[in-house]
Amino acid sequence: MSSIQRQFQLFPQISRKSGSRMGILSLPHGKVKTPFFMPIATRGAVKNISPDEIKALGAEIILSNTYHLLQRPGLSILQKHKGLHGFMRWDRPILTDSGGFQVFSLAKIRKITFEGAIFQSEIDGSRITLTPEKAIEAQYIIGSDIMMVLDECTPYPCTYEYAKKSLAITLDWARRSKNHFEKINKKKKLSEKNRPLLFGIVQGSVFKDLREEAVTELVKIGFDGYAIGGVAVGEGINQIDEIVRWTTALLPKDTPRYLMGVGKPEEIVRAVHVGVDMFDCVIPTREARHGRLYVRTKKRAAEKKFYDVLNIKNGIFKEDMRPVDAHCACLLCTQFTRSYLRHLFSTNEGLGLRLATLHNLNFYLRLMEELRRV
Amino acid sequence: MSSIQRQFQLFPQISRKSGSRMGILSLPHGKVKTPFFMPIATRGAVKNISPDEIKALGAEIILSNTYHLLQRPGLSILQKHKGLHGFMRWDRPILTDSGGFQVFSLAKIRKITFEGAIFQSEIDGSRITLTPEKAIEAQYIIGSDIMMVLDECTPYPCTYEYAKKSLAITLDWARRSKNHFEKINKKKKLSEKNRPLLFGIVQGSVFKDLREEAVTELVKIGFDGYAIGGVAVGEGINQIDEIVRWTTALLPKDTPRYLMGVGKPEEIVRAVHVGVDMFDCVIPTREARHGRLYVRTKKRAAEKKFYDVLNIKNGIFKEDMRPVDAHCACLLCTQFTRSYLRHLFSTNEGLGLRLATLHNLNFYLRLMEELRRV
Repeated sequence: MSSIQRQFQLFPQISRKSGSRMGILSLPHGKVKTPFFMPIATRGAVKNISPDEIKALGAEIILSNTYHLLQRPGLSILQKHKGLHGFMRWDRPILTDSGGFQVFSLAKIRKITFEGAIFQSEIDGSRITLTPEKAIEAQYIIGSDIMMVLDECTPYPCTYEYAKKSLAITLDWARRSKNHFEKINKKKKLSEKNRPLLFGIVQGSVFKDLREEAVTELVKIGFDGYAIGGVAVGEGINQIDEIVRWTTALLPKDTPRYLMGVGKPEEIVRAVHVGVDMFDCVIPTREARHGRLYVRTKKRAAEKKFYDVLNIKNGIFKEDMRPVDAHCACLLCTQFTRSYLRHLFSTNEGLGLRLATLHNLNFYLRLMEELRRV
Repeated sequence: MSSIQRQFQLFPQISRKSGSRMGILSLPHGKVKTPFFMPIATRGAVKNISPDEIKALGAEIILSNTYHLLQRPGLSILQKHKGLHGFMRWDRPILTDSGGFQVFSLAKIRKITFEGAIFQSEIDGSRITLTPEKAIEAQYIIGSDIMMVLDECTPYPCTYEYAKKSLAITLDWARRSKNHFEKINKKKKLSEKNRPLLFGIVQGSVFKDLREEAVTELVKIGFDGYAIGGVAVGEGINQIDEIVRWTTALLPKDTPRYLMGVGKPEEIVRAVHVGVDMFDCVIPTREARHGRLYVRTKKRAAEKKFYDVLNIKNGIFKEDMRPVDAHCACLLCTQFTRSYLRHLFSTNEGLGLRLATLHNLNFYLRLMEELRRV
């Protein structure tokens, strides 16, 4: 039995109509039920809520970002705090993105070579070099439970030639990441049980043969799990679904599959149904900050229109005495009226952002709970 | 025994060296130990924290503002929620300022007549007339435990002539407020035990004879408590102390004294020592939003330099692994390092505002606890 089979225990659900899976992923900081959604703590804080609140919502794992943490607070401060867990006071598992996506989407001045990515700090303009090895080392200092390899996230649209060249770099970086990861585990004398997991990232843009090549090569290298990257970058829903279907069909059955940065509730539902186990997305927290709240209808997650989005800034809620969602058990819905939440947004009270964030995350986390049941 | 003697029970502390008092004020929504400090919920929310957090800090009463609530959410929405208590979900006492101070400090277009104050709404430019009677009626709809009369808060500096004329208006408004208050209590059939309290406000700028006249006239009208208004408007610490000393010496001993909008910790300590019972101030919450945190030294509140102010944005805290205040029991100090709080402020995370607000309010509320002991 391989190590990952010990770390990832799948419960075959023979009666399941869809291709959805259910399991438990065992990580250095605890066990996580799959499929799961990770609230995003980009810079070491889930926007507007505290670690005890994240826990109370039932989140078993959160996501943070190497690119942002490298710049602020920087690795030396994280090291002093014995990693991100100590810094932000979160004692459950953390997955960290390698920073590849941000180098390409955020860094204004950057250069990609086979060696790595060089970019200018957003904070002080200093030059930062991120190599596959450095990304791994940074993630050890952060103390990640699940590390991601450095990859090049192709933009959309991009030509076949560009995607092919980019994939060659991504695969080379994946090999180097795995080597460096094994070297460090050996040096740190981490057992198979105590070590973090390392995930490969499938790129290849919208090109099926490149996605296939990516899976084949990554599986040859051998990772603890596989992420589908380079989606939700502008290619549209149908194409995301297609890429997810191609890729999950090819991926090993006994390792976790992670669809990066996706997505809307219905996108998550569809991806779970084709066998994806892990998700992260800024949508619930970002939408909350704009006063858009997710409300369940009476339909089940597999059905159409299983939720509405309520824009609390809308004048129609001015005197609405109902809770945002009468069936929701979050602080917002059990305590306050829509009218009050609207007032908090009108008067720019920080409490409004917090209550809306708690609510939307609760919506996502309860949705995952439902997806684990059916 | 007059009604206020039943509502305000003073414990004579014969051994007290200073003129400080200790008591219990009984209000429709509960009892409050004096001297006390009221966290400010100007628009129906204490900035960045939730009602359960305010309660957990040990606050027994908060302050809100008629001027702001009139404009947003407006009285009809408050009425629907059965008052501010239902709207913001706070079940302990609330004191409301009448709005006089804001009419003079915030409203851009305004006109004062003997009838009342006319000003333009900050929100929609509509014309709002605030008369002493309307201010009282609004405070019934808000559901205040302690109502303040409408007054004219004199600016600083102002001439003797201006202050004298202004005081005449303020005293006239005080008489009308009391009349209207009694009329409504009768109409609502509120017993002496269930009715809210009504406080008069002593004005008179920096002129001793005007302050004396104000006290004499207000006491003739008869209020449940007396506030010292028109201080901390720019006249300087020594003059505040002087006005407070003059006024408290003249005020009845068996009614609560409220020093409006004051102040810094040492100002509160000095005022308690000359017999003031009630305080409110934006300082702890506003300073928190700017990253300035109050930290106790080892000295007692009566001594000099009993606290420091720590500016968490300062670079010296970048790697500071200590809590903000090692002796503080708030969420910030028991969980997080100075380094982390600084990071939250650097990255504009809302959690930083909340943690700092909790801390500064805890500082103020624990200070009041100490002042009730000694």
